[in-house]
Amino acid sequence: MPYAIGIDVGGTHLRVALIDGGGKILNRRAEVVGEARDPAPFFARLAGSIRETAGEYLPKISGVGLGLPGICNGREKVIHQLPHFPAWRDVSVVDLLQKEFDCPIVFDNDANMAAVGEHWKGIAAHWPSFIMLTLGTGIGGGVFLNGKIWQGEEGFAGEVGHMVIDRNGPACICGQKGCWEVYAASQSVPKGTTAEKLSQEASAGDAQARLFWKNFGAALGVGILNLAHITGVEHFVIGGGIGKAFDHFIASAKNSIQKGAYPRLSEKIVVFPTALDGNAALLGCAASVLC
Amino acid sequence: MPYAIGIDVGGTHLRVALIDGGGKILNRRAEVVGEARDPAPFFARLAGSIRETAGEYLPKISGVGLGLPGICNGREKVIHQLPHFPAWRDVSVVDLLQKEFDCPIVFDNDANMAAVGEHWKGIAAHWPSFIMLTLGTGIGGGVFLNGKIWQGEEGFAGEVGHMVIDRNGPACICGQKGCWEVYAASQSVPKGTTAEKLSQEASAGDAQARLFWKNFGAALGVGILNLAHITGVEHFVIGGGIGKAFDHFIASAKNSIQKGAYPRLSEKIVVFPTALDGNAALLGCAASVLC
Repeated sequence: MPYAIGIDVGGTHLRVALIDGGGKILNRRAEVVGEARDPAPFFARLAGSIRETAGEYLPKISGVGLGLPGICNGREKVIHQLPHFPAWRDVSVVDLLQKEFDCPIVFDNDANMAAVGEHWKGIAAHWPSFIMLTLGTGIGGGVFLNGKIWQGEEGFAGEVGHMVIDRNGPACICGQKGCWEVYAASQSVPKGTTAEKLSQEASAGDAQARLFWKNFGAALGVGILNLAHITGVEHFVIGGGIGKAFDHFIASAKNSIQKGAYPRLSEKIVVFPTALDGNAALLGCAASVLC
Repeated sequence: MPYAIGIDVGGTHLRVALIDGGGKILNRRAEVVGEARDPAPFFARLAGSIRETAGEYLPKISGVGLGLPGICNGREKVIHQLPHFPAWRDVSVVDLLQKEFDCPIVFDNDANMAAVGEHWKGIAAHWPSFIMLTLGTGIGGGVFLNGKIWQGEEGFAGEVGHMVIDRNGPACICGQKGCWEVYAASQSVPKGTTAEKLSQEASAGDAQARLFWKNFGAALGVGILNLAHITGVEHFVIGGGIGKAFDHFIASAKNSIQKGAYPRLSEKIVVFPTALDGNAALLGCAASVLC
């Protein structure tokens, strides 16, 4: 049985997992990213975490896969931009870890890794083409076409959160107006409450909370339709923190999707929640090494 | 030297051309589509036009390529939907023409064929990935990824005109609100004038006409940025009737593009006008047979 290390780096936390060739997670640890965000100290510490997570399996590791929250250029093997790690400009991840480990090291954007995980062990196992949407603070996208991730010319494919759906809408942190993630990610949750609270309230029948999820779903549906009209992809997987409220927003999203320009397309669009319990990216990291 | 027949079917006109393996158009005829829009009489007449256009080259023809204004499912070899030809529902184009000609017959959406033409003999000859935008009454899109047309799961890729960029905007004929083509196609030209007049007036310094093209370009740029954020494609070719006003709207479009979420992406986006003088789709039809 082959083994791999998967690493899912978030803005505040990172997770390291030992995963076998069947997709089973044998060991997993979560750490706070903390202050050591410059590449050299970050990777020195990460090497230690990898060793501890692998334990006695270390000599049997086939490779290390990393999911990173930013723009990754796989061809040039550099990170263009990680919003939470401003010092990572054109960092060569592979070189930094290769010093420590004598095995293949691969990396990609976290939403792309989640898509690979969904294709390996999730709902998308039998879908040659689909788009993974990770709904968190923003919206990450993994565009999976004909059996593999489509990176775009330089790694920018899947930056779907900054698709403008309301050009006269409110400002996005990116400088544009009316980006998709302003409406259909956790940044749309009003101050003073949380997505979890709004879900509980909606379940209890609260009209205000239900209206929130209705509007959230309507905007989500507009963006999914745009993606379908552009890419012709008909299969979508929803993950990410606020994606857990799937049951609260999906009816409204489907209502939007039915209003598309082509009934033949709209009726084919399927939107499913992830069934991988937050481990899609970790599994994708392992699959990128093992498959 | 091999030869092919290219056929570009529009809403009101169709053009048939004899094209050689070097991309030279040896003969070309244009016809009014007229009333005979049901598949059987349409293809019977088209067979006659092909014979007349080919003339003495008929026995040397390697194949016939057709560009059609609608949703084509190449895998199932049927037309899903042609707005101008409502009787064409799941028509098997190949079967209808194959009765008449003993050579390969291929077809695709006209914007896809234009993209193939641009890649064969146009500005995109050295671009492995790009998006063709045909700006006419609506906006057609040909999504060319890694050396070939990306069709989507069932032929719906590239229906970019119905990407919503202003979800509270005016109604589109498709039933959605604020579709891209409401703003950046000839349907945005005010009643009582034409794109040609507005171009002449803008050249002469008319403020109203210049404002029209500024707004047109701004909306065009928003959509191009969306496409770049989603697909990671950085190269765009503009064709179509109102695309001829390129010089009037490109500065404003570029201004929009510079406002994208990722400066590293925005600065890489290039937008060029077609140099194929309206023959991109015909050339693409020939290339689909000959290449």
